[in-house]
Amino acid sequence: MRVYNFSAGPAVLPEEVLKEAADEMLDYRGTGMSVMEMSHRSKAYDDIIKEAEKDIRDLMNIPDNYKVLFLQGGASQFFAEVPMNLMKNKKAAYIITGQWAKKAWQEAQIFAGDGAVAVASSADKTFSYIPDCSDLPIPEDADYVYICENNTIYGTKYKTLPNTKGHILVSDVSSCFLSEPVDVTKYGVIYGGVQKNVGPAGVVIAIIREDLITDDVLPGTPTLLKWKTQADNDSLYNTPPCYNIYICGKVFKWIKKMGGLEAMKAHNEKKAKILYDYLDQSKLFKGTVRPEDRSLMNVPFVTGNADLDAKFVKEAKAAGFENLKGHRTVGGMRASIYNAMPIEGVEKLVEFMKKFEAENA
Amino acid sequence: MRVYNFSAGPAVLPEEVLKEAADEMLDYRGTGMSVMEMSHRSKAYDDIIKEAEKDIRDLMNIPDNYKVLFLQGGASQFFAEVPMNLMKNKKAAYIITGQWAKKAWQEAQIFAGDGAVAVASSADKTFSYIPDCSDLPIPEDADYVYICENNTIYGTKYKTLPNTKGHILVSDVSSCFLSEPVDVTKYGVIYGGVQKNVGPAGVVIAIIREDLITDDVLPGTPTLLKWKTQADNDSLYNTPPCYNIYICGKVFKWIKKMGGLEAMKAHNEKKAKILYDYLDQSKLFKGTVRPEDRSLMNVPFVTGNADLDAKFVKEAKAAGFENLKGHRTVGGMRASIYNAMPIEGVEKLVEFMKKFEAENA
Repeated sequence: MRVYNFSAGPAVLPEEVLKEAADEMLDYRGTGMSVMEMSHRSKAYDDIIKEAEKDIRDLMNIPDNYKVLFLQGGASQFFAEVPMNLMKNKKAAYIITGQWAKKAWQEAQIFAGDGAVAVASSADKTFSYIPDCSDLPIPEDADYVYICENNTIYGTKYKTLPNTKGHILVSDVSSCFLSEPVDVTKYGVIYGGVQKNVGPAGVVIAIIREDLITDDVLPGTPTLLKWKTQADNDSLYNTPPCYNIYICGKVFKWIKKMGGLEAMKAHNEKKAKILYDYLDQSKLFKGTVRPEDRSLMNVPFVTGNADLDAKFVKEAKAAGFENLKGHRTVGGMRASIYNAMPIEGVEKLVEFMKKFEAENA
Repeated sequence: MRVYNFSAGPAVLPEEVLKEAADEMLDYRGTGMSVMEMSHRSKAYDDIIKEAEKDIRDLMNIPDNYKVLFLQGGASQFFAEVPMNLMKNKKAAYIITGQWAKKAWQEAQIFAGDGAVAVASSADKTFSYIPDCSDLPIPEDADYVYICENNTIYGTKYKTLPNTKGHILVSDVSSCFLSEPVDVTKYGVIYGGVQKNVGPAGVVIAIIREDLITDDVLPGTPTLLKWKTQADNDSLYNTPPCYNIYICGKVFKWIKKMGGLEAMKAHNEKKAKILYDYLDQSKLFKGTVRPEDRSLMNVPFVTGNADLDAKFVKEAKAAGFENLKGHRTVGGMRASIYNAMPIEGVEKLVEFMKKFEAENA
């Protein structure tokens, strides 16, 4: 029996994607081999990766002057790739909306020291809101402005993008990837680890404006961390994480079948509303995020009583609701309700919460 | 129907591993989720990665003073990690036995320039042999000596390790990983991409002597490329390629069941002998490697006639023998016969080659 899996990532995937993968495991469409066993230089695999790229381009309406790269190392490795590839003046502006934005900023300091500037932060209130980014003190010679667009741990999301004052915007969308339509042209770089909303851990997808992909990288940049190496070789400079990309491709097809990113947004808004509406009227549970900054993907909530929180997580688990424990820095609970979480999962969770509230009033 | 897959990598995996993975795809052992969907911080996943580490430690008899790291980026990324983590004097000795050793050497030059020295090479004869490494001009202050132990493209393998004159030995074993017993204590670092003999592309396994894992790395080393980051966090600093590691773990179990690395060596020797014995007496086909340096894993051979080579590859494919085309730098054919290639596969290939020889005499 499948559980309702509210994990923040790796996270729930569409059941039909998993079924297809299982069916194709020993023989991918008459090739006589698993996708795991295929040469990455074979025609069969080339079709898989090319089609995956085409599908994500369709879904996100990615303009021709942006490259789509399938990379490795997770967002944490990409934190280094951003300064290595983009820093010309060794100056960049970071907006600190949580742990991951902070880690990205710290990584940039390895290369730029004080040149990596935190221009705004919501650390004062445990990152429970998105700061006003309409008029930030962005250094004029900043190479880019960096944000983490959806903050997995804290459950916040930018509803409007920062005013970058003409600078390149770099955005980590790991936990909101493909959850709603995006205007790619507003970004220089959009990237994310796939393990939350797109596929199995081990792939980073980076969508990068072509003019930002150059040989002019910081000295000491490894060949593989230079975006140009990957762009010039269509992500096949060396063996990519073939199977992981194949699963991502299946998820792209599933999203297309569901109606694309507009439909996905409606689906996610509907799910999130069920949960937030309940939280807003509950006398026991309460959301931790400023309402206007709430994420559609990650919903942290607390009872205000650590023992009661622990009791809830334990009883929820016993009832088939997995991974509801909140991140240690926020405490309480967190329900991650990514694309593949069915509405039924959220409905049943709220039903369970109501019952728990009645029993523990 | 499954084919006989002679791909150099990604490559054939044990059929029972794939079957188990397919069976567990929607519900891993009663957890109600796929391993792809599991939090890397969950108990279930922790058991998987810990058991994988234990099993490879058992198989390779890895001493306690060596760490086992599960990394990303392929061997190509590790080419940079070696100098970044080991260079103190910016001096290292590389033995050039093929394209991958050469690429590793070139990568080291990014960090050390002329300090990365090629101390031997077999480029003069298209890398068809392993140079004499008993008395090489290794610089006294070299930080390490680097080899690619089995050369996938050229089909050569070191039968004795180089005399490093007391220096640390770093070895890329991507294409001979777990193919036979290894004395780990002779190395400072043993590493390889898993996609040839161990699992699905997207994982590098590195076995590193603990004293070589320090904070003393080159300036500008990304956090994730510093081995200490990974070692201190048991390869869970960030989300690892969870599913890929899970499949590697299944392959470790399969090798244990087959009798461990001694049994694997016997199995591989038996397979290779069938093919080499045939090549040595064939009037049409001939092996390209000096007999004493022949790999058990990758067997390149030619007819000496490019048209006939192409005809062979085409007819072999039609008969269910896949991926026999040789690397463009060697030409002809190459049969990669990794652990998971059954003896039957090699027997049938030789049968087919005999038939082809008779028809094309």
